[in-house]
Amino acid sequence: MTSIPSTEKIETILSAGWLTVWFNTPENRNALSDELTAELRAALEAVRNDPAVRGVTLRGRGGVFCAGGDLKGFQAALTGGLSHEAASTMNKMGGELFRLINEFPKVIVVLVEGAAIAGGLGLACCADIVAVTHDAKFALTETQLGIVPAQIAPHVIRRIGETAARRLMLTGARFDGQEAARLGVADHVAEDAVQLDKIEADIRKAVMRCAPGANAATKKLVVDAKSLDADQLIDRAASVFADSITSDEGREGIMAFVQKRKPDWAE
Amino acid sequence: MTSIPSTEKIETILSAGWLTVWFNTPENRNALSDELTAELRAALEAVRNDPAVRGVTLRGRGGVFCAGGDLKGFQAALTGGLSHEAASTMNKMGGELFRLINEFPKVIVVLVEGAAIAGGLGLACCADIVAVTHDAKFALTETQLGIVPAQIAPHVIRRIGETAARRLMLTGARFDGQEAARLGVADHVAEDAVQLDKIEADIRKAVMRCAPGANAATKKLVVDAKSLDADQLIDRAASVFADSITSDEGREGIMAFVQKRKPDWAE
Amino acid sequence: MTSIPSTEKIETILSAGWLTVWFNTPENRNALSDELTAELRAALEAVRNDPAVRGVTLRGRGGVFCAGGDLKGFQAALTGGLSHEAASTMNKMGGELFRLINEFPKVIVVLVEGAAIAGGLGLACCADIVAVTHDAKFALTETQLGIVPAQIAPHVIRRIGETAARRLMLTGARFDGQEAARLGVADHVAEDAVQLDKIEADIRKAVMRCAPGANAATKKLVVDAKSLDADQLIDRAASVFADSITSDEGREGIMAFVQKRKPDWAE
Repeated sequence: MTSIPSTEKIETILSAGWLTVWFNTPENRNALSDELTAELRAALEAVRNDPAVRGVTLRGRGGVFCAGGDLKGFQAALTGGLSHEAASTMNKMGGELFRLINEFPKVIVVLVEGAAIAGGLGLACCADIVAVTHDAKFALTETQLGIVPAQIAPHVIRRIGETAARRLMLTGARFDGQEAARLGVADHVAEDAVQLDKIEADIRKAVMRCAPGANAATKKLVVDAKSLDADQLIDRAASVFADSITSDEGREGIMAFVQKRKPDWAE
Repeated sequence: MTSIPSTEKIETILSAGWLTVWFNTPENRNALSDELTAELRAALEAVRNDPAVRGVTLRGRGGVFCAGGDLKGFQAALTGGLSHEAASTMNKMGGELFRLINEFPKVIVVLVEGAAIAGGLGLACCADIVAVTHDAKFALTETQLGIVPAQIAPHVIRRIGETAARRLMLTGARFDGQEAARLGVADHVAEDAVQLDKIEADIRKAVMRCAPGANAATKKLVVDAKSLDADQLIDRAASVFADSITSDEGREGIMAFVQKRKPDWAE
Repeated sequence: MTSIPSTEKIETILSAGWLTVWFNTPENRNALSDELTAELRAALEAVRNDPAVRGVTLRGRGGVFCAGGDLKGFQAALTGGLSHEAASTMNKMGGELFRLINEFPKVIVVLVEGAAIAGGLGLACCADIVAVTHDAKFALTETQLGIVPAQIAPHVIRRIGETAARRLMLTGARFDGQEAARLGVADHVAEDAVQLDKIEADIRKAVMRCAPGANAATKKLVVDAKSLDADQLIDRAASVFADSITSDEGREGIMAFVQKRKPDWAE
């Protein structure tokens, strides 16, 4: 049985086929410190190969999702003579986290209350599904600090398109949950935290009806698709489809449909 | 003069420079059976090189557009011991159809009444223009059946973006015509079938004002653009533009504009 | 101190860290004639390396933004026996202009009153931020003239997606400012010219708070991102981030944040 490593900066709950990760450093508005980032990666890796875990929800304690990078940590590092190499190495850790979330073989949900700023907004862009409260605050503030929203750039572009990404990055524009939905940052807008929980429960229920192997293969195909040309796409898709329909899961799914019953993964 | 091969699973009407294809197997909700797919491909190939045909409309008899793959056919094949190779070969036929529609050198319109599910929704995503009734039903249900929405993946991604595609694929979420418009699946939403016909008539009228050669060259350039870098794009675009403006069509179009008359293709 | 070359087809105002370019040939609705294109390119190149210039606004005199290509010029050229090579060379000038605007290392704002048609709409699509009046008119009319919207194709696709681009190009559909916002052509919709000016003032104010070096590096990274794979993106992003945080600008930005004061570029 899967167990999550002991953590200090996040809280984890593994229940009913779902991992919930609460960011839990409200004292710095759940900033992506090195410690929090490392704990989050370890928690995700712990469930990666457990077929019983169907999805992951990321959210924040203290009424805020995530304020982005650890600016006080940056300041301390700069005061200590931060080298280009050290800055690059530190930054890559963030990039690897964003990639891990984007390519994770289970559904990733992000719930935003309060704020998702800079890297916190970037992290939301890596999720499969984002639900936010209507009054949550969003902004890409990096360039106001003289730094580049670099590791999040491809993820923000993927979620909202290059043009909107450019506008938000070059102006630091602040926006709320309603605008987040209009831009494509958010898929669902809740009136309050209670409704946010209800939206998440509905997402979990929907995901539980989908076959875990098919979901993992679908996510991988979608991520890989952008590097394939039209011929390659047809060949790869045919291979992935044939894998799925001739698997135990595929047989069970088709049979259950014809027999008008739930497939075994949905029971 | 172009003639369409005799068909059983689709009805074709070739009139006034436009091919209308009615999917006509309401008994299985116009599922993409091998026969229907083959007939549709043959009908499209029959008009491909006829300059008098300016566009194609795909729609469904029985108050439904298309329910997707032929699940009973899948079940029969699985019972008969479907091999990975046979599944892959069958699936490629679907992929080739989607690609044919996406790259077809004439305007493709899809009209959705009732439902466009799984591969039926994927097929709509391959069209240039999609009009739907407000109460039409949409969903990507593949993963609920243990299979991967594989051949449609690149087409869904192209139409609605990778993030929305992932969410719909990983949850099987159902949505209606209004939401289809919000997501970018649909370009036009109609109150009912009568208004759907009116929208289609307006689209035809607009397409008839556009030069057929320029439209074909435009569609090809747009499809090719994603594989070219910035330098190549400028060179290719210049070549395509020069082809068009020095063609009979281009000369006629510019002259007609200056002379304030309709060009000959619009008469 | 930067000075803009003398111009006849455009008016330039360089003030308060911002270059405003007014297209000023209302007699042909500010069409992209060879002369206007050349003057615009020269004006942009004149400020490219001036760190004091933080952005550029493009707009049109005579109540219209830009009607697109110079159709009377095309007609004269055709009458004079325009060769394929000459057409291609002329067209590349447009393509180079669009690329220059898209990749320019400062924020580019386009304000649309009246109309942005064909190449005029394409030019708007190259900007970082577009604000329009609600009653402005938009259309891609090229195929109605027998020609291909070739150089603008990648820019329209980038801004509104391939599917919407195809629909607009293959039908010549006309739409207004509200619809431009829905499609993603416009980021802001104004009631009238007065409100348009106010929107622009707010954009300038926001850009002035962002570090010029970080903005230039961000824009370059976003433009380059599409040609990099996931591994390359992490390495490039780390390098760009490390450049920024170890630069004078980055140190100043982080220190100013911790000290709760404005950074020097925002004073």
